[in-house]
Amino acid sequence: MNTRNKDIPCLITIFGATGDLSHRKLFPSLFHLYQQENLNEHIAIIGIGRRDLTNDDFRNQVKSSIQEHVKDTKHLDKFITHIFYHKLDVTNKANYESLLEVSERLDQQFQLQGNRLFYLAMAPKFFGVISDCLKSAELTNTKGFKRLVIEKPFGSDLESAKVLNDQLRKSFSEEEIYRIDHYLGKDMVQNIEVLRFANAMFEPLWNNKYISNIQVTSSEKLGVEERGGYYDSNGALKDMVQNHMLQMVALLAMEPPISLNSEDIRAEKVKALKSLRMFENDKVRHNFVRGQYDASEIEGQPVQGYRDEDRVDNQSNTPTFVAGKLTIDNFRWAGVPFYIRTGKRMTSKTIQVVVEFKEVPMNLYYETDKKLDSNLLVINIQPNEGVSLHLNAKRNIQGIDTEPVQLSYAMSAQDKMNTVDAYENLLFDCLNGDATNFTHWEELKSTWKFVDAIQEEWDQHEPEFPNYKAGTNGPLESDLLLSKDGYHWWDGIN
Amino acid sequence: MNTRNKDIPCLITIFGATGDLSHRKLFPSLFHLYQQENLNEHIAIIGIGRRDLTNDDFRNQVKSSIQEHVKDTKHLDKFITHIFYHKLDVTNKANYESLLEVSERLDQQFQLQGNRLFYLAMAPKFFGVISDCLKSAELTNTKGFKRLVIEKPFGSDLESAKVLNDQLRKSFSEEEIYRIDHYLGKDMVQNIEVLRFANAMFEPLWNNKYISNIQVTSSEKLGVEERGGYYDSNGALKDMVQNHMLQMVALLAMEPPISLNSEDIRAEKVKALKSLRMFENDKVRHNFVRGQYDASEIEGQPVQGYRDEDRVDNQSNTPTFVAGKLTIDNFRWAGVPFYIRTGKRMTSKTIQVVVEFKEVPMNLYYETDKKLDSNLLVINIQPNEGVSLHLNAKRNIQGIDTEPVQLSYAMSAQDKMNTVDAYENLLFDCLNGDATNFTHWEELKSTWKFVDAIQEEWDQHEPEFPNYKAGTNGPLESDLLLSKDGYHWWDGIN
Repeated sequence: MNTRNKDIPCLITIFGATGDLSHRKLFPSLFHLYQQENLNEHIAIIGIGRRDLTNDDFRNQVKSSIQEHVKDTKHLDKFITHIFYHKLDVTNKANYESLLEVSERLDQQFQLQGNRLFYLAMAPKFFGVISDCLKSAELTNTKGFKRLVIEKPFGSDLESAKVLNDQLRKSFSEEEIYRIDHYLGKDMVQNIEVLRFANAMFEPLWNNKYISNIQVTSSEKLGVEERGGYYDSNGALKDMVQNHMLQMVALLAMEPPISLNSEDIRAEKVKALKSLRMFENDKVRHNFVRGQYDASEIEGQPVQGYRDEDRVDNQSNTPTFVAGKLTIDNFRWAGVPFYIRTGKRMTSKTIQVVVEFKEVPMNLYYETDKKLDSNLLVINIQPNEGVSLHLNAKRNIQGIDTEPVQLSYAMSAQDKMNTVDAYENLLFDCLNGDATNFTHWEELKSTWKFVDAIQEEWDQHEPEFPNYKAGTNGPLESDLLLSKDGYHWWDGIN
Repeated sequence: MNTRNKDIPCLITIFGATGDLSHRKLFPSLFHLYQQENLNEHIAIIGIGRRDLTNDDFRNQVKSSIQEHVKDTKHLDKFITHIFYHKLDVTNKANYESLLEVSERLDQQFQLQGNRLFYLAMAPKFFGVISDCLKSAELTNTKGFKRLVIEKPFGSDLESAKVLNDQLRKSFSEEEIYRIDHYLGKDMVQNIEVLRFANAMFEPLWNNKYISNIQVTSSEKLGVEERGGYYDSNGALKDMVQNHMLQMVALLAMEPPISLNSEDIRAEKVKALKSLRMFENDKVRHNFVRGQYDASEIEGQPVQGYRDEDRVDNQSNTPTFVAGKLTIDNFRWAGVPFYIRTGKRMTSKTIQVVVEFKEVPMNLYYETDKKLDSNLLVINIQPNEGVSLHLNAKRNIQGIDTEPVQLSYAMSAQDKMNTVDAYENLLFDCLNGDATNFTHWEELKSTWKFVDAIQEEWDQHEPEFPNYKAGTNGPLESDLLLSKDGYHWWDGIN
């Protein structure tokens, strides 16, 4: 949130540069930053891959990816001259010497002042070895800054995350490690903090005196598609809850930080995450619901069940849906459930937060059978982006009843024009050395601990999978989780 | 706010039935109530006038007024059969005997159960004598209810208001007197109460801890037009502040009533009005600004100054503009100024409330020269009807600054379809015996007392009139009233 510097020279080395993420997100985002003059001419990008490609081959690939993802391609040819391809077997230490040479040459050519950003857009099994090799080849021995950006997943439980972290820390300090959680790059996720702390209206209401419950949903309409192999060994709990969902909960629950510095914000997030009540044994079953989708029809088309998906074990017990009731044990939130829910093959693709306020303390308008609607603050993250507030008013004064009315603000296309994607925000942050919207190791530790306890309990009981039909909002137990508290999911609200 | 009864039989006698108000407002409103089945067939309307007219003449007049003001005239012919003309010299007691006869006949014919509503749409000098005559002719001696509806102005100061009230009270009890303040019939004025008390979000914020100031504006673009005679002996203070402006302040400032019963609500309003700090001598000049418009050009057309208007004294010291800073001396509002402003020949026709919240206690986003914008709750009463909330958000996350965004709800044409006018709401209330949205004598007493003190001080000092140009938002002093407190009028906000 600090002032942004647009003149940061840097060599950006992307491992996995021919992969899907690079082509869909990284190159379009870097190009857009360049086009918007958030990157200047003192920039060079090395794409690392295993294949034999010439610079020209690679540049043509990047060019067509960008043309596919960015509408306005002005300055594309100029941007492309900053891109270089380098073939490398990432597990072979000896190979890194040539990378050092290229890096030093480009540093000179583009006057990069020794600033180096290494982006690992690869399978997690390579994170450790690349980090080791960068050090042993002295790529990390540079007079400028060095930063390591890594994609999820960061380990598959607390133990493996610790092992990985220890390995990375041999080459990079905690401050130099930027763990991507792309949800934190989304404009409306970042706006949670702005809404809370840049508006005098909300903070006084943001506690257990006025809020009855908070609901965080991230649903997908699609199934696992071609990610079956990766997904089947992770599932919704590890793939979504441990990172994205708990990160959003932390932003919603944290105390106001003493400043917007990265350390201060992340310290408050860590505190919030540490306040999560741990669930074990029976408590897991009472507070968490897992689901797996069954074959069904969506919009008249048959869709297969999870167990029939490509590269998925046909006896798989991997959850494709998780709903949970989180309890935050601190003064602010005692008694306020945070419900989270995420899954595949649900009714819609939606990322949304609903803050439900308590009922009016003394309902003066309760003269009919109808109850007053609760006030809701809805933060729409995706696909709609905006904020809406649901209030009670009288549209027709002669009538008896108050009716819900919606005050809403939707980000317009104009507002959105300046950002291609969450990745663009995050890359720009990283170049600026702002780690606010990346996951700190302490956050990871807390979230893995929380998630491991649930997984452990689940591992001891065979689930009755599949238990929800594709195209529905998960198993019945997900609804019961709220109804037993007197609430319900605010499905379809905007 | 109670359940509405649509089957109330009643004889409605309108004094001044050939006048402007009757034709523009009362008949169209009554017709629309009838059309919407909020009035049933057990209804008869006597129009009283001085002219010789047959029932048919009068019905034709009413019919064409309605056709002019109501789009859908379905059932108009049936409605018209409920209307009767009666010629009467209202100052002549003897004349009322024939009115009694007609009333009793119509009561029988339409089965009105002796319910009588007398609507005085006449010059205030006739209020007393009509009330007296209704009693002496025994029109008020009826087995059903009797109610008196009177238009403003109710007196021209506290003394004359008392005299008038005493006179009316000889024939009608306080509960039977319905003093119209048509602002209280406006949907969005009534929604002030609904917003405050039917939404859990606002009441916790509705005090001096979170609100910095409240602004109430009622501006007109027009001059006095053909009302010069009436207006010149009243002016903005008596014509607008004593009633409409202070009523809106009372609704905004009142404590939550223990119920929505008329007595409970009005008791709270009286308390709020009694908490208004009285201004005398010097204090008037520090807290109140009067203005009178001068000739100018509006949209390229020359418009004359107030003193040149038809039937206005060319040395007139009548204010056509008043701005004031009100102080409410109670726990809730100590330190929160309520600024009011009303005038003619201003930049726009607007009735609006702006609630300005205090700045965030600790501005985390204050890293540039730009201050954060205040949160605003804007209640648009006229011509727009709706509510909007101005918050801070980030549209473009890569930028530094938060920007104001507006969450808004505007009443749609659909919402409005069911009401023709404030008068329709008020007539329906009155038939239902709900006096909530009429002015209680205790409210009048407080407001006249407040206004009299200002007028008294003004009378002792010759104003420097004219002091603002037609087509502007009043004299400079009006802006200074706020700027010396560090605020400004939120002109042009929506």
